Amino acid sequence: MEMTLKEVADMVKGDLIGGPSITVRTITNLEGAGPGALIWIEKKRYLKAAEETEAEAIICKDDIETSSKPLIRVENPKLAFARLAQIFFPPRQFPPGISPDATVSPEAKIGSGVSIQPRAVIEAGVTIGNRSVIGAGTFIGLNSKVGSDTRLYPNVTVNEDVVIGDRCIIHSGTVLGGDGFGYVQDENGLQVKIPQVGKVIIEDNVEIGCNACVDRATFDETIIRKGTKIDNLVQIAHNDDIGENCAISGLCALAGSVKTGKNVIMGGQCGIADHVEIGDNVMLGARTGIAPHKKVKPDQILWGAPARPIQEAKLLYVMESRRLKEIMKERGEEGLSDGESD
Amino acid sequence: MEMTLKEVADMVKGDLIGGPSITVRTITNLEGAGPGALIWIEKKRYLKAAEETEAEAIICKDDIETSSKPLIRVENPKLAFARLAQIFFPPRQFPPGISPDATVSPEAKIGSGVSIQPRAVIEAGVTIGNRSVIGAGTFIGLNSKVGSDTRLYPNVTVNEDVVIGDRCIIHSGTVLGGDGFGYVQDENGLQVKIPQVGKVIIEDNVEIGCNACVDRATFDETIIRKGTKIDNLVQIAHNDDIGENCAISGLCALAGSVKTGKNVIMGGQCGIADHVEIGDNVMLGARTGIAPHKKVKPDQILWGAPARPIQEAKLLYVMESRRLKEIMKERGEEGLSDGESD
Amino acid sequence: MEMTLKEVADMVKGDLIGGPSITVRTITNLEGAGPGALIWIEKKRYLKAAEETEAEAIICKDDIETSSKPLIRVENPKLAFARLAQIFFPPRQFPPGISPDATVSPEAKIGSGVSIQPRAVIEAGVTIGNRSVIGAGTFIGLNSKVGSDTRLYPNVTVNEDVVIGDRCIIHSGTVLGGDGFGYVQDENGLQVKIPQVGKVIIEDNVEIGCNACVDRATFDETIIRKGTKIDNLVQIAHNDDIGENCAISGLCALAGSVKTGKNVIMGGQCGIADHVEIGDNVMLGARTGIAPHKKVKPDQILWGAPARPIQEAKLLYVMESRRLKEIMKERGEEGLSDGESD
Repeated sequence: MEMTLKEVADMVKGDLIGGPSITVRTITNLEGAGPGALIWIEKKRYLKAAEETEAEAIICKDDIETSSKPLIRVENPKLAFARLAQIFFPPRQFPPGISPDATVSPEAKIGSGVSIQPRAVIEAGVTIGNRSVIGAGTFIGLNSKVGSDTRLYPNVTVNEDVVIGDRCIIHSGTVLGGDGFGYVQDENGLQVKIPQVGKVIIEDNVEIGCNACVDRATFDETIIRKGTKIDNLVQIAHNDDIGENCAISGLCALAGSVKTGKNVIMGGQCGIADHVEIGDNVMLGARTGIAPHKKVKPDQILWGAPARPIQEAKLLYVMESRRLKEIMKERGEEGLSDGESD
Repeated sequence: MEMTLKEVADMVKGDLIGGPSITVRTITNLEGAGPGALIWIEKKRYLKAAEETEAEAIICKDDIETSSKPLIRVENPKLAFARLAQIFFPPRQFPPGISPDATVSPEAKIGSGVSIQPRAVIEAGVTIGNRSVIGAGTFIGLNSKVGSDTRLYPNVTVNEDVVIGDRCIIHSGTVLGGDGFGYVQDENGLQVKIPQVGKVIIEDNVEIGCNACVDRATFDETIIRKGTKIDNLVQIAHNDDIGENCAISGLCALAGSVKTGKNVIMGGQCGIADHVEIGDNVMLGARTGIAPHKKVKPDQILWGAPARPIQEAKLLYVMESRRLKEIMKERGEEGLSDGESD
Repeated sequence: MEMTLKEVADMVKGDLIGGPSITVRTITNLEGAGPGALIWIEKKRYLKAAEETEAEAIICKDDIETSSKPLIRVENPKLAFARLAQIFFPPRQFPPGISPDATVSPEAKIGSGVSIQPRAVIEAGVTIGNRSVIGAGTFIGLNSKVGSDTRLYPNVTVNEDVVIGDRCIIHSGTVLGGDGFGYVQDENGLQVKIPQVGKVIIEDNVEIGCNACVDRATFDETIIRKGTKIDNLVQIAHNDDIGENCAISGLCALAGSVKTGKNVIMGGQCGIADHVEIGDNVMLGARTGIAPHKKVKPDQILWGAPARPIQEAKLLYVMESRRLKEIMKERGEEGLSDGESD
């Protein structure tokens, strides 16, 4: 892959200063800069370091005027970088075809250009769209559907009646369509299983990390809407409805019947109890906890457990620290360090 | 599957009011109600909505006297629903037999009516009881035992010397019999592995969710007793002894040598440190933490980390909020919202 | 396996008192003691119980002078036990060879004495060192390398461009080389994927538990250094650099670009935000949380979230409890119990 700076600038709608015919063969960050590379910097203060590398040119914000190297100035250098990286580092291509070591039901419908890798198992009634890749050891159960241009990495489990959209990426170890955790206690207090007979719907452009779990609904559907990204080891429980374009970080645990709006972002290890509703554009700091049946208003940042607006959560922490200091002073103990060096 | 209301009422020992010969073909909740359906409602206040559906009849508590639809009145509608759902939605049936694409040791003993799906691997010395289902890609190691009428979903890993009882359900991605996390530091501070040579025992009627881990004991046994239900992404460590009929929610982390009584219920993301003992009928709110070697008395509800009786944990939260309000008032800041709308 | 007490004492450099020619056939703890067994006790107060068993001899600290049984006195009985247990309980041996049910690329380089179990899939360009064991259903992707004497348990996923050292143990369900969780929002707030094209390096003597995730770097490398041990369900994110000889317990979540020193120990469920640096010999209590970009000084114990030196975190808890008691007293409520019996 080779592009001229002119081509790059056109592609990211950037403002090119110098060297239109210079060619670049890769895009990288400051640390990886070398001959043939285009690099990106997020802030003006990295310009000098960038100029000292062997990179051919620099993508930067439009607050930089001149440089000893050609510049491509854009509003959002990280976004330009991501788009160019998608071109310079295209996903691995798999030759179409079904491995002789895969087990594919004759009653499955496989689109054109699909690659089914060794040891994959595809049951009856499954539909797979065009150009999708089914990784080694991946299982797709009865009547499930996979869209087009979707990649299931090796050792994914897609149980019965799961629908996955187009251009999705499901990483290894993830399980879609496990039973929801639903029981009711009988007269003797024994747990009686409530059959979980609903579906899972994964809409287009969703990416789910490794070893995550998306349970099927009791009835109806567990749904993850368009463009949402889910990290490793996350639990999405039965009947959850995750809005479009959310980002849910590692080890978050969402209980049953949670509903989120669009653009909701969760830091790592958040815990969302059952029947919570979260409005659009809510951001939850790492390890935030939301109690059952709460409704979280849109357009705010919460933190802590129980969750509070982030300024209040931080103030609480400051209050605690102050009290701690006073008490230690009374006791004649050493002044506090916070255990961290900055 | 079709049943008359008379048959349904007999089965759940309910009190039928009207329509004994009406037939129903499914059971569902309010949202899914339609012709041919029996629906259940938990509370009297949903009766009107239930009457407005096209459902044939309603299962409800015995505090409802009359209705425009036939009623089946029971003490516990949710329990009646669960039992009927098990009949109307029986688990998927697998034709008995060993897939030609499975790898089964000739030294394994396979019961009658067993289904072994493609790409499963069964090692020597394994015993599988009658009518059990071993999912695609599932591995069962040397000398492990699976009882009768047990289902291992696809891509489960059962390592050596694990014993699984009758009527268990193990979901995809779960690993039984990984090594416990046991090391001791040598003279130079290096971690030296303590071999983990014990067993895992999963008793009858246990269900374990997706991507959970139950480690083998150092010596002796890690044991999960009869009827206990474990959710996705839960860690049960070496030498744990989980009592009968417990329910452990998603992402709980139990360290080594934890012992729980019967009917213990844990909300999501609880953390139980090593050597903790928890009495019968204890309930831990989500994300409760218990410190090492603590003994938790039976018959109480705890919450928080470190864990406190739930009323105290809640009081602590109220105190914090009050203090926060005062401080914000002093500073002249806006009155607090809790970021939630109810 | 049989050893005389003289041989055992020599091996652990212990001080043998009595019975040099007595033979032992196993090593165990107090609970498992029986004829033919050597047992170990950690403290003097267990001596009497140890003497009452049928064990042949006792490994103990050198503060014990005499006993009715032969003694092997050492500085660190647990360490001696671990080393002897490695001899009495050697890891399972696998006959070398490639299962006819495995799928191994002719372009993979397989060392001597390697065992590749059924349903494993090894892609082109893979290198596997001598005597390593690749478990059933395990996948190793394009150009990855596995060292010598390494064991991958069944159903492990090693994606492309992962390097695993010698004498490593990777447990079932673990995924090495999943994509890092990296996105940037576009003009419309949609998440745009940043391709993750770096590597994963697992150095020698590393052990990783079940269902853990180690993501590949965006560029460069995610690295886990020599001798580090990682428990079940842990997330190691893109570009993390975990120092030598660390121990990270179950369900810890490390965000991207975290760097730790040597000998760092984390209790369960810790959360380390992105770009944190942790110095050598730091110990984090269970569920400690460290905020983004913090630098944690070496040689200290932290606890809580946000993390504080452990004495302060404990003092905070005491203060809370005291306040709680006062308030309950004012209200005339019953004295507090802490819900635990000791």
